[in-house]
Amino acid sequence: MTRYESVAAVLRERIEHGLYRPGDRLPSIRAVCQEMDVGISTAQEAYRQLMDAALIESRPKSGYFVLPGYAPSVLPSASRPAQRPLDVSQWDQVLELIATRRDDDRLQLGRGVPNLECATLKPLSKILGGLHRRTELNGFNYDTLIGSPELRQQVAKLAVASNCLLHPDDILITTGCQEALAIALRILTQPGDVVAVDSPSFYGTLQILKANGLKALEIPTDPQTGISLEALELALEQWPIRAIQITPTFNNPLGYTLPAERKRALVQLAQRFDVAIIEDDIYGDLAYAQPRPPTVKSFDDDGRVLLCSGFSKTLGPGFRVGWLAPGRYRDQALHMKYVSTGASATLPQRAVAEFIAKGHFDRHLRAVIRQYQRQRDVMIGWVQRYFPPGTGISYPQGGFLLWVELPAAVDCVRLNDRLAEHRLHVAPGALFSASGKFRQCLRLNYAFTLTPDIEDAVRRVGALAGAMVEEALQPLE
Amino acid sequence: MTRYESVAAVLRERIEHGLYRPGDRLPSIRAVCQEMDVGISTAQEAYRQLMDAALIESRPKSGYFVLPGYAPSVLPSASRPAQRPLDVSQWDQVLELIATRRDDDRLQLGRGVPNLECATLKPLSKILGGLHRRTELNGFNYDTLIGSPELRQQVAKLAVASNCLLHPDDILITTGCQEALAIALRILTQPGDVVAVDSPSFYGTLQILKANGLKALEIPTDPQTGISLEALELALEQWPIRAIQITPTFNNPLGYTLPAERKRALVQLAQRFDVAIIEDDIYGDLAYAQPRPPTVKSFDDDGRVLLCSGFSKTLGPGFRVGWLAPGRYRDQALHMKYVSTGASATLPQRAVAEFIAKGHFDRHLRAVIRQYQRQRDVMIGWVQRYFPPGTGISYPQGGFLLWVELPAAVDCVRLNDRLAEHRLHVAPGALFSASGKFRQCLRLNYAFTLTPDIEDAVRRVGALAGAMVEEALQPLE
Ligand SMILES: Cc1ncc(COP(=O)(O)O)c(C=O)c1O
Ligand SMILES: Cc1ncc(COP(=O)(O)O)c(C=O)c1O
Repeated sequence: MTRYESVAAVLRERIEHGLYRPGDRLPSIRAVCQEMDVGISTAQEAYRQLMDAALIESRPKSGYFVLPGYAPSVLPSASRPAQRPLDVSQWDQVLELIATRRDDDRLQLGRGVPNLECATLKPLSKILGGLHRRTELNGFNYDTLIGSPELRQQVAKLAVASNCLLHPDDILITTGCQEALAIALRILTQPGDVVAVDSPSFYGTLQILKANGLKALEIPTDPQTGISLEALELALEQWPIRAIQITPTFNNPLGYTLPAERKRALVQLAQRFDVAIIEDDIYGDLAYAQPRPPTVKSFDDDGRVLLCSGFSKTLGPGFRVGWLAPGRYRDQALHMKYVSTGASATLPQRAVAEFIAKGHFDRHLRAVIRQYQRQRDVMIGWVQRYFPPGTGISYPQGGFLLWVELPAAVDCVRLNDRLAEHRLHVAPGALFSASGKFRQCLRLNYAFTLTPDIEDAVRRVGALAGAMVEEALQPLE
Repeated sequence: MTRYESVAAVLRERIEHGLYRPGDRLPSIRAVCQEMDVGISTAQEAYRQLMDAALIESRPKSGYFVLPGYAPSVLPSASRPAQRPLDVSQWDQVLELIATRRDDDRLQLGRGVPNLECATLKPLSKILGGLHRRTELNGFNYDTLIGSPELRQQVAKLAVASNCLLHPDDILITTGCQEALAIALRILTQPGDVVAVDSPSFYGTLQILKANGLKALEIPTDPQTGISLEALELALEQWPIRAIQITPTFNNPLGYTLPAERKRALVQLAQRFDVAIIEDDIYGDLAYAQPRPPTVKSFDDDGRVLLCSGFSKTLGPGFRVGWLAPGRYRDQALHMKYVSTGASATLPQRAVAEFIAKGHFDRHLRAVIRQYQRQRDVMIGWVQRYFPPGTGISYPQGGFLLWVELPAAVDCVRLNDRLAEHRLHVAPGALFSASGKFRQCLRLNYAFTLTPDIEDAVRRVGALAGAMVEEALQPLE
């Protein structure tokens, strides 16, 4: 965090805890400088950030005030998924979200795509452009099945930040994180098996369960502390669970991060019931504060955690470069990788490895993280301003996805139908459940540059949602 | 075919039919010019080709002679695989073939990799190098799930040559042909199901069966006419077969091409028993004669054929660009594609599409086809010269793979052990069977530039195989 971000964070916390209430005047710039030992421009920048986030306003000649309309953001209530294994449905909805055609002119507010226009990504284009001349790379030929040694080495180095000590040979390069997840689930299960998942949960994983005839056991998950270990323990006693699949850091979609001690407890629980854990860490490197949270894998001392990640959320999904650290399941994972797609594409692996080795990746991460943190606050401000009262909003500490829980009267699949006329689309909450729960929830992306167009789009979503609440209040004729 | 190639083909046929026998003098250059109405240099070039192929020799001042050691190539005997469904094994052997490390200095005579050093491939490097600058391509973002429209359009155009009328939307771009095969098998089967395969059969497909708990029913296959439809019919009556998987054109490894009328009959058989056909056509575009053979898919009038192909054998496997025409199984295939790897990588698809659209692909195909045909004859010549008597050799009409059947005394897995000392490796026949049959067979690749080093390597393989035959003849002490 920069200086002004720390100052803004302190002020924000006081506002959120009600120390300054809506309409209250905030300390003067001078007072802030004194208290926090910073310069005037830092204090001003901090206030500017809080204004961008729509928490406060500046009144000419009077100073800064908490916005009169500000309501401390209500976190979504803890999810209460059904406590029995379910077949996964919702493929049509997923298809509508992901199978966009290139001539689709809808503004998709909910897709899980990072900002691809950062200047810090430019060197990657350059590297890609140069690779074709380097014939010694054998870019036209198969790479090694397990993945390019150069890339595996870089991945092993990066993993240290999450407290993971991986040897490059412990890592298998995959065709996107999706393939890592699919391989993990395929080697651990047979059709009909039960897999425990946090809930809501990434639709891509749920659809793997569907395609492989697996049943999802959705474990209640708290928007702040994450999956309930108590509920998970009960479930492990009750059902023949073959694997626990979880995104415990900057969870998609809920935003939660399982605290480190609960990550350790999760491993112990899995050991007690002798079950494998499939950990999806794809947002883990996008932490707003350093050091980034440890992975569940970092507490794994007997190789039962299969760690899935990749570069789709940090560099771009178009390269399809992901990875899997399969622990004790290495041989099965390598076989499943071979039969599924053979070796991964050669040149993208080399490009990513070079981008990291030359220090561009660190620089890029620092830039986007700052941007995402700032934009989280802006987006939260918009949702608070434009969405109907009673709306709950997540408060993620990394990544670029916001989970919004609307009043029960709003059905976000129907909301999407209405949004279609405006060429808008959100990710409806039902995607994230095996059985279409979370109908009043939606996911927003705050990675793109937040232009007035986006604000206008958020405003429309809020207005249409508000209309649905109103309609529900009308007495039936 | 060029002029001189036609002349050489006519002469070769006469030799093969015994019109000129080993040691016989061939017609003079002048006689050839008169008979075939060609110029002197064409006749000379034709003779040079036959010399390269080790069919004939030139004796100073006397003319051209059929090589004294020449024996008309004996085709391998028809395979007789076990007629019951089997679990697939052999993964260790496959791993040894494919999981080569980059510092592996073995000369691999058996890998299924095309010639990657052709000048006609150069424009592809150029195109790849230029793509990174074209930001409108959105190369960092996901492509459409079904695949880039530009590439699907080109694939549909190419398919016309195989008599297939496909709409671009009938085609799904995959991560290599391997993913197309894996998707097809996964949507058609459940663990425990039986799949009929030609035999010998590509190990990559057999390993998919293994990974998914499927059983292989190996159908006897003739090296010239291909899979026995009679045996297949019997098998369909006897076993609950869920799919027929076959590589009916320039088969890997046997080299056979199922005649067109038998392809039609295969579809009718599948209709009668209501079973799906998974057709692997990855070598189909590498036909030495035009027009290329039709696909089984071209006879499919009710969408039961799932056609798998790609650019790994024509351009290079490092791009991982394959495709699947899933017929009536489109929805399931799209879902399985999504859960397995998501959308395919963006830029490689665009590069391949542009390479084809600009006419480079046609030019490249023409060049490599000529080269492969020439090199087939050279490689056959070497095997005839250096391998023990009684060795059978396939005579493929396309592709770049040779199937060699050695005397029964030779075990090619053990042969590979001995070759390891010489830093040589062949693809042992056992890879191509669910249960390790074809132990006395091996597969050779004649796509690489056939240098004296390669000749020397083939000579060593032959000598070591010969030694194994000798050892078997020694009376046991
Ligand atoms: C939690 C999570 N895991 C995995 C993926 C898939 O990543 P990739 O595009 O690398 O396959 C996503 C992307 O949406 C995701 O959000
Ligand atoms: C018959 C056959 N099918 C499929 C493949 C796999 O092709 P790809 O590298 O495109 O996955 C091969 C490659 O060895 C092959 O020989």
